Amino acid sequence: MSLVTLTTDFGHGDYACGILHGVIWSIAPEARVVDLTHDVPRHNTLAGALVLDRALPYFPTGTIHVVVVDPGVGTNRRPLAVKLGDQFFVGPDNGLVSVAARRVEATGNPVEYFHLNRPQYWLKEISSIFHGRDVFAPAAAYLARGIAPDQMGIRIFDPFQLSLPEPEKTREGFLAQIIHVDHFGNLSTNLPGEMIGEESRIIILAGTARIDGVSKTFGDRHPGELVALVDSAGFLSIGVVNGSAQHMLGLGIGDQITVIFPENR
Amino acid sequence: MSLVTLTTDFGHGDYACGILHGVIWSIAPEARVVDLTHDVPRHNTLAGALVLDRALPYFPTGTIHVVVVDPGVGTNRRPLAVKLGDQFFVGPDNGLVSVAARRVEATGNPVEYFHLNRPQYWLKEISSIFHGRDVFAPAAAYLARGIAPDQMGIRIFDPFQLSLPEPEKTREGFLAQIIHVDHFGNLSTNLPGEMIGEESRIIILAGTARIDGVSKTFGDRHPGELVALVDSAGFLSIGVVNGSAQHMLGLGIGDQITVIFPENR
Amino acid sequence: MSLVTLTTDFGHGDYACGILHGVIWSIAPEARVVDLTHDVPRHNTLAGALVLDRALPYFPTGTIHVVVVDPGVGTNRRPLAVKLGDQFFVGPDNGLVSVAARRVEATGNPVEYFHLNRPQYWLKEISSIFHGRDVFAPAAAYLARGIAPDQMGIRIFDPFQLSLPEPEKTREGFLAQIIHVDHFGNLSTNLPGEMIGEESRIIILAGTARIDGVSKTFGDRHPGELVALVDSAGFLSIGVVNGSAQHMLGLGIGDQITVIFPENR
Repeated sequence: MSLVTLTTDFGHGDYACGILHGVIWSIAPEARVVDLTHDVPRHNTLAGALVLDRALPYFPTGTIHVVVVDPGVGTNRRPLAVKLGDQFFVGPDNGLVSVAARRVEATGNPVEYFHLNRPQYWLKEISSIFHGRDVFAPAAAYLARGIAPDQMGIRIFDPFQLSLPEPEKTREGFLAQIIHVDHFGNLSTNLPGEMIGEESRIIILAGTARIDGVSKTFGDRHPGELVALVDSAGFLSIGVVNGSAQHMLGLGIGDQITVIFPENR
Repeated sequence: MSLVTLTTDFGHGDYACGILHGVIWSIAPEARVVDLTHDVPRHNTLAGALVLDRALPYFPTGTIHVVVVDPGVGTNRRPLAVKLGDQFFVGPDNGLVSVAARRVEATGNPVEYFHLNRPQYWLKEISSIFHGRDVFAPAAAYLARGIAPDQMGIRIFDPFQLSLPEPEKTREGFLAQIIHVDHFGNLSTNLPGEMIGEESRIIILAGTARIDGVSKTFGDRHPGELVALVDSAGFLSIGVVNGSAQHMLGLGIGDQITVIFPENR
Repeated sequence: MSLVTLTTDFGHGDYACGILHGVIWSIAPEARVVDLTHDVPRHNTLAGALVLDRALPYFPTGTIHVVVVDPGVGTNRRPLAVKLGDQFFVGPDNGLVSVAARRVEATGNPVEYFHLNRPQYWLKEISSIFHGRDVFAPAAAYLARGIAPDQMGIRIFDPFQLSLPEPEKTREGFLAQIIHVDHFGNLSTNLPGEMIGEESRIIILAGTARIDGVSKTFGDRHPGELVALVDSAGFLSIGVVNGSAQHMLGLGIGDQITVIFPENR
């Protein structure tokens, strides 16, 4: 019995994400299907790639992650199944899997890419605009039934790579970049927590605000105050206690945060 | 083991849709329950009917579809269970099932309607405003346990019919009507794709815009351009590549689209 | 096989609620997990407590309810597992369970509180800001596997209590308070339906409006009219037929409603 997760930019107002459940259950009645999120910002493949990367460590062996953020649907971009260590990715070859793949490879686990080019594992009729339903959901269902990915397509070695912005080293510290904003308006950056270590005296400049020091949790500051902390994915993040840093600072994805180590001044 | 789907206009901010899961599982612990959508526009029975119609072909034999868009709850409108070929509908008798029923009948499969009038298959206490919880969820759960619909109510032959607007034939082509707008702002009409066939030279007038020809997929045009194509449900649809036709054209459900075949001019 | 429900203020735009599914399934592959709602108003523990209280009666024996509305995460507020009659609560000790607990105790069923202080039942790495993932989801999964709550922590007798506002008795009737607004804009008060009984001639003053009498269902009045009725949770509620009382009256949670019994005038 396999677990299948669904991550898309389809939203909830439509039957699109529900139909994926139907297709998977029609082919693999024993599968368990869970919606990870259907609110990836539209056509934002980097945001989809981050969801997969951050969710992966918390799912069991054998989980199959269907991720469909697919502005190129119907063009010649390839449909993929990818072995990600002991889990699987199914989705378009537009970089959605690349962030998670680099993390899996960095831990010494194998990543193998397969071009899903055998139509017997698709639905019989293929629309040119809904491959989530017609190609990816069926492929996930066949994986859930135990079909090996190399039966469903040929192995490839040139998958599309999405580059995640790296934090920039400066004379005084780092220029980090906001790469994710959560439901609470917390601004998550690309600077790994280990790069600031136990250094609690750092200075953070975010928009027009200055934050002194990194806190352990929101409770260390008063309601309404800005707080810098290492978020649950392990990255430097800016929040407001019981409030929204996104709204207070007017910052969002792509904006920069300056991190200064006082001893470098 | 049966699959039960839930489609409502309850939204997600409330516990209402979650409670349906609880009621079903209390009665049928082996059932599998999946949320199709809870964001049907409020009290819009035609929108609910379209969700059911479009989802039906993608669900396995035996699936039970609970659809609750129920402005008449507590009045004398009847609660129904309907055999839809090899699947089932459970919900109010206000036309929610009628579009799917006509499609199932058109393919030669039987459709049978039952008035759920046996209280032993409801919850013990019936509120006058939440029959989703008190009548429909229990009925779906008993169907999932294998109780036949004719045990739960008497057969009826006069279900409420909802009329779907038909495209209008004109001298030059068709007047189509927008009947669905998806999460991406694509405007889906009531004109079946087969009525325009392979005719790629048609002219489409939508609001103040003119679109020449029908494309195979979004990738055939440039970002920001209007595109006409046959959508994943098989109907003529207007979209904007990487954008929203709904916003660009200011059109929505009920608005008309003119389709012209040049040879008729 | 146990059912686990999830109620949070995480919203749907993020992977946070999806990760809870992954953690639970990694530990308890046989569990069934259902999202009750992830749209509890941010940090509103009373709203979360009401969701649990109202959902509880509709879930089967053995259900484990994870509720995470947790402004104090990372501080010294305790993580709890609570035996609620024949069901369970898992979440922070901030009163989320207290409304349901009082109802369960009032029916003569036992309620027992356990402080989850044994780290072997948490994830290995604990962040200071996401105990839903690191503490509560694992605890729910171990309960689903049959581990008794007293193995996972010590029993406590001083849980945090959240006080639900009580309706105020007046000379002419009651001052009720709005405690919940649903997706349709219906205003639900804290006045139990049995307190107005069969008395259909009461007068209700809500904002600048006056409503005469309590209706049985929305169908008793015309579209656009205000209606007072006993809602599906058993409390006096104000709605508008096919409309929104919230919008028409401009009232919300915390606002007062005056109930007058004419014979007391």
